[in-house]
Amino acid sequence: MVLADELAKQQRSISVAEFFEKNKHLLGFDSPTRGVITTIKEAVDNALDACEEAQVLPDIYISIKKTGNDIFRIIVEDNGPGIVPAQVPFVFGKLLYGSRFHQIRQTRGQQGIGISAAVLYAQLTSGLPTIVLSRTGPKESAHRFEIQIKIETNEPDIISQQPIEWDRTHGTRVQIEFRSTMSAKKKLLEYLKYTSIVNPHARFRVELDDESFTFERVSQEVIACPVAIQPHPHGIEFGQLKRMATASEEKLLDFLVEGFSRVGKKSAQEMCDKAGLKGMVRVKGLTTEQLKALLAAMQAVAVPAPPSSQCLSPIGEELIRRGLDKEFQMDFVAARTRQSSVFSGHSFMVEAAIGYGGKLPPEGTAIILRFANRVPLMYQQGACAITGCITNVNWKAYNISQQGLPTGPILILVHVASTNVPFTSESKDAVASIPEIEKEIVLALQDLGRDLKNFLSRRDKNKVAEDRARAVCAIIPELAAKVSEIVDKPLVDTSPIEGKLMRKLIAKKWTRDNRVTIEAINYAGHDGEVSVYDISHDNAADASPKPDFVSEVEGQFTKVWKVIVPPQKIWRVTYSGKGGGMLDIRGIDDNKKMVVDLDV
Amino acid sequence: MVLADELAKQQRSISVAEFFEKNKHLLGFDSPTRGVITTIKEAVDNALDACEEAQVLPDIYISIKKTGNDIFRIIVEDNGPGIVPAQVPFVFGKLLYGSRFHQIRQTRGQQGIGISAAVLYAQLTSGLPTIVLSRTGPKESAHRFEIQIKIETNEPDIISQQPIEWDRTHGTRVQIEFRSTMSAKKKLLEYLKYTSIVNPHARFRVELDDESFTFERVSQEVIACPVAIQPHPHGIEFGQLKRMATASEEKLLDFLVEGFSRVGKKSAQEMCDKAGLKGMVRVKGLTTEQLKALLAAMQAVAVPAPPSSQCLSPIGEELIRRGLDKEFQMDFVAARTRQSSVFSGHSFMVEAAIGYGGKLPPEGTAIILRFANRVPLMYQQGACAITGCITNVNWKAYNISQQGLPTGPILILVHVASTNVPFTSESKDAVASIPEIEKEIVLALQDLGRDLKNFLSRRDKNKVAEDRARAVCAIIPELAAKVSEIVDKPLVDTSPIEGKLMRKLIAKKWTRDNRVTIEAINYAGHDGEVSVYDISHDNAADASPKPDFVSEVEGQFTKVWKVIVPPQKIWRVTYSGKGGGMLDIRGIDDNKKMVVDLDV
Repeated sequence: MVLADELAKQQRSISVAEFFEKNKHLLGFDSPTRGVITTIKEAVDNALDACEEAQVLPDIYISIKKTGNDIFRIIVEDNGPGIVPAQVPFVFGKLLYGSRFHQIRQTRGQQGIGISAAVLYAQLTSGLPTIVLSRTGPKESAHRFEIQIKIETNEPDIISQQPIEWDRTHGTRVQIEFRSTMSAKKKLLEYLKYTSIVNPHARFRVELDDESFTFERVSQEVIACPVAIQPHPHGIEFGQLKRMATASEEKLLDFLVEGFSRVGKKSAQEMCDKAGLKGMVRVKGLTTEQLKALLAAMQAVAVPAPPSSQCLSPIGEELIRRGLDKEFQMDFVAARTRQSSVFSGHSFMVEAAIGYGGKLPPEGTAIILRFANRVPLMYQQGACAITGCITNVNWKAYNISQQGLPTGPILILVHVASTNVPFTSESKDAVASIPEIEKEIVLALQDLGRDLKNFLSRRDKNKVAEDRARAVCAIIPELAAKVSEIVDKPLVDTSPIEGKLMRKLIAKKWTRDNRVTIEAINYAGHDGEVSVYDISHDNAADASPKPDFVSEVEGQFTKVWKVIVPPQKIWRVTYSGKGGGMLDIRGIDDNKKMVVDLDV
Repeated sequence: MVLADELAKQQRSISVAEFFEKNKHLLGFDSPTRGVITTIKEAVDNALDACEEAQVLPDIYISIKKTGNDIFRIIVEDNGPGIVPAQVPFVFGKLLYGSRFHQIRQTRGQQGIGISAAVLYAQLTSGLPTIVLSRTGPKESAHRFEIQIKIETNEPDIISQQPIEWDRTHGTRVQIEFRSTMSAKKKLLEYLKYTSIVNPHARFRVELDDESFTFERVSQEVIACPVAIQPHPHGIEFGQLKRMATASEEKLLDFLVEGFSRVGKKSAQEMCDKAGLKGMVRVKGLTTEQLKALLAAMQAVAVPAPPSSQCLSPIGEELIRRGLDKEFQMDFVAARTRQSSVFSGHSFMVEAAIGYGGKLPPEGTAIILRFANRVPLMYQQGACAITGCITNVNWKAYNISQQGLPTGPILILVHVASTNVPFTSESKDAVASIPEIEKEIVLALQDLGRDLKNFLSRRDKNKVAEDRARAVCAIIPELAAKVSEIVDKPLVDTSPIEGKLMRKLIAKKWTRDNRVTIEAINYAGHDGEVSVYDISHDNAADASPKPDFVSEVEGQFTKVWKVIVPPQKIWRVTYSGKGGGMLDIRGIDDNKKMVVDLDV
C-alpha cells in the first residue's frame, strides 16, 4: 500500500463547531475574563439589533453571579420581539446561523456565530447547557429551552423544551454558565459606558454579585432600523454574479434592475449593450464568457454609490458630542460624520470625535474609543486599523505631542459603520486594514485636528492677552497714585480699567450721605450669574431691589441678592444706611471677580 | 402575525464557504498581492508537511505567470507522497477538511482551510476552477481534476476528473488562477528566503514571469516527522472529556492510560481513587457529576509535561545560526532553543536568535523575523504577540537603543513551535497573546540580550584598548628618536612595540653582509594566514624556505611565500642578495599589518 493511502485514512471533515472549539481565542474566548465580556457583548448586540428591528426602546437587564466552584452565571434579558420557538435551538445551538448574514445593512451581529460561541464555551468549560426563555407576544406562550451544541455536527442538541409562564409580554432571556475566575467588573462597566455613548436610546440595568448599576437612556427616540439593500453592481465579484445568475429565473434586464442597487432601466440597458447581450435573454442560460462580459459591463457603466442613508445608521455629530459630554468633562469636543463611501461594494461611513482638556488625564497617551456598527471594540487596540490611522496622523501639525499615539489630555473616538465591517477575526475586536476605510478615518481625524488646533491657539492667545493685561493692571494703581499726587487731586477708582482689561465682574460699594450703593459691573463676555453678599449693621429695609435673603446675627445683617448681570451691563442696588462692613460676590472664580469697597 | 414570525423567515444557516467568501480577509485574501502570497504559502505548507510525512527531501517548484487580463496563474508542484484520487476533491474543494486538525503534533497546516480558501478565492475572482494533478506512486496512475467549491453547501464540485500521464512518480501539482494586479515579487522572494532559513532541507525553484531563481537546500537531512500524541490530562476541558467518554467503549482505567498522554497505570489508579470511581466501570456510563469529579482528579494528580520531543520539531540553535549566516552577514549571532512548555494542554517551544552589526542597516528599527511551526509570518507584524514581546523587553538594559522596537543594526528571530499555534485569525499571520507563550519568548530574548550585551561590551573594551594603544604608538617613534639623540646611539626599531600594542602582524626586512632576512611576527591573538611579497633584483635562489612562487620582469624578481604564522610566533626567511626593493604582506586588513623595510 502506498503512503498516500495511509495518509488518506486520517483525512476528515472538520465541523465548524470543532474548529472554533479548538480555536476559541478567535471568537474572543481566550481568557475567562474576556469570555465574560464577549458573552455579554454578543447577547447585548443581539438584544439591541432585535429591539431596533421591533422599533422598541431597549431595556436590557444583565446579571453576573458566581454560583460557586469557579462557575459564573451570566444572564442577559431584553424586551425585544422574541424568537419563535422553532428557531431558538438554531439561533443558540448552531454556529453560522442567523438572519443578518445575508442582509446588506448595518447590524451589530453579522456572522451568526457570536451567541452560539458562548453556548459552546459554556458546555466546554462547565458542561452546562444554556437556558433560553423567549416570548414573541402577549397572545403567545413563553418557551423555555435547555440547549447545547453537538460538536461533531454543529447541530443543536435540545436537552429540554417546554412552555412556561413569564411576566414579560415579549423578549428573550439567555442564561449561560461557564468556568471563570473573575467577574471582570471594571471592563464590564467600561463596556457599558461606551455602549451607552453610541446607543443613547438604550437602558441597561446591571446586577454584579451584590451591586447594581443603571445606565439610563439619554434619548427617548427609537433608532431607525437600517433597511437591507441589493448588492451594488460595482462591488460584486464574478463568483457571486455567477451564483445569482444560476439561481435566477428572470430575464437579464429585470435581473439587473431588481437584483442590484442603483441600477435603473437605462443603466441596465447600457450594461446589456456593452456586454453585447440582449435584455430579454434568460440570465440562467448565460455562458461563463457571457457572464464575464456582463460583469465587465456592469462595472464600466456609471451608477450612483449605494444608498447609504437607508442601510447605514450613523450616530450623528450631535449625539456623539452629547454622549461624550455625559461621560467625560472636557474643555473641547468636536465631532464629524463623514459622507458615506464604498469598499468592495460595501457601504461604510466614518464618524470621529476629539475631546481635549478638562478632567482628562493630563499626561500619557490619548484615550482611544473605537466603535464599529455602534458596538464598542474592547480588545486588540494594537491590531486595529483605527489605532493605525490615529498613529499615522501627524498630530504635531495640530500642536499635539505624539509618541506613536498622540499624548496629553486628549480623547479620540472613531466609529466605523458599514453593511459589512471587515474585522480582523471572528471575535470582532479590531477593524482590518482596508485602504478605503483608513483614508476616511484619517480625513476625519485631520479635519478634527484642525478644529482642535484652532481651539488651542485661541486658548493660547487668550492666555497671552490675559498675561499682558495682568502686567498692565499691576502698574495702574501706582500710576494713578503718582498722577493724583502730581496734579494734587483725589485718587480715582481704577477698578473699571482693570475689570475691562481682565474681563472681570466687579462689585463696588460706597456710601454718601447715609445712602449705600452697591454696583456689579460685568466686563466678561458672557452672563455673570452671581450672589452678592453684603454684611453690615444696616438692615437695608428700603433696599431696591429687595435682597433675596436677609439674616441677622448680633446686629450684623447679611443681605444676599441673586443676580444675573449680562455682559457690559451694570446691576445696582441702593438703601439707607451707614455702609461699611463687608462685600463679596460668590458663584464665580476668584480670578474672574474683583471686589472694591470704597468705604474702607 | 407577530414580528418574530417575520424575522424568523430571514433566519438561515450559513455555509462555512459563504462565511469565508464574505470574510475573505480573515483568510489572508484581503488584497490581490497578499492573495498571491497566501496561496503560495498554503500550497508550500502542504507540500512541506506532506514531504515530512513521506520522509523525502522537498523539491518544490513555484511558478507565477500573468495569463492576460489581470489573471495570474499560480502553480505549486511538489515531490511529496501525493493524494489518493478519492480525497483530492475534498482536500481542495471543501473548507475545514484535512488530516492534521485532529492530530496533536506540530504541523504547518492546522485547520484544513488554507488551500481550499485559495480555490474559493480563485472561483470568486476569476470564475476558473482549480486544476490538481496528483500521483501516489510509480505503479499508480496520475489523476487530473478540475475542482470548484459549491458555496451554499461547502462541498466539492468536480468539473472534470481523468487519469493522465505524468513524468513524476509521486507528488502533487496545483494550479490556481485568480484576478490580481501584481505578482508580488519582492514579498515572494522574502517569503522564500525566510522559509529557506527554517527549512534548510528544502529546495525551491521559482519561475516568476520570465525570471527564475533557485533557493538551494543547505542540509541533506530529512526532518524527523513529529509524532501525534494523546491529549494531556492537565490540558483537557470538560466538554472534550465528556465527548471522549461518550464515544469510548473502554473501562475507566484503560480509558485514562490509553486515551491520555503521560498517564501510567499508577497515576490512572490515583485519579480513579481521587474521583471516588472504580477503575473497572465503563466510562460511557459515567454521569455528568462523576465526569466532573474525574476531571478534577485528572487535573489534581501530578503527571509529567507532554512528551514534546516527539510531537514538536524545533529548528535547533545550530541550524538557526547557519540559516541566518547564509542570508545576512552579521558580526554577532546567537540563538536559543528553550525547553518545551504547555498552554491549555498544548505543547509549545520557543526558539529565538539575535544578530547584530555587519551588513544590517545601521539605523531604523530592528529587522523582525517571525515564524510559527517553521512557517514565516509575513503580515500583521503589529498584531503579533511576538512583536509585543520584543517591544516589552527593556533593550536599553542590553545597551541597545529602543523606540518601542529596538533600533540599530539588529535582527531578531522568534520561532514558536506548537501542536496548536494560537493564531489571531485563520490567515495565520500573527500569534495571539497567550501569557505562557509570551513569557517564554521574553525569557529567550532576555537571555540573548545578555549575550549581545557581552559582545558589545567586549567590542567596546577592545575599541578603548585600541584607541589607547594608538595614542601611545603615535609618540613612540618620536620618543625613540629623542632618546637616541640624547644617549647618542643609533635609532632602534620600535615596530615590535607597536605591533604588540596594536596586535598586528609585522613584516620586517633587512640586509647585512649581502644576506637578506625577512621576518613576519604575529602579535595578533589568532593565526595570521598571509602571503609575503618581496620584489627586488635578488633572485633568492638559495632562499630557505623556498618561495612558493617566483616571477621575473626585466630583472625584477617577485618572490611570494604563503605562510601561516601562529600567534606570538616568528616566521623567517634568509637568502643571499643586496636587498632593497619592496616588501608587502597580503591577505590581511591594512590596519592589522605593519611593514618595516629596514633597508630603506
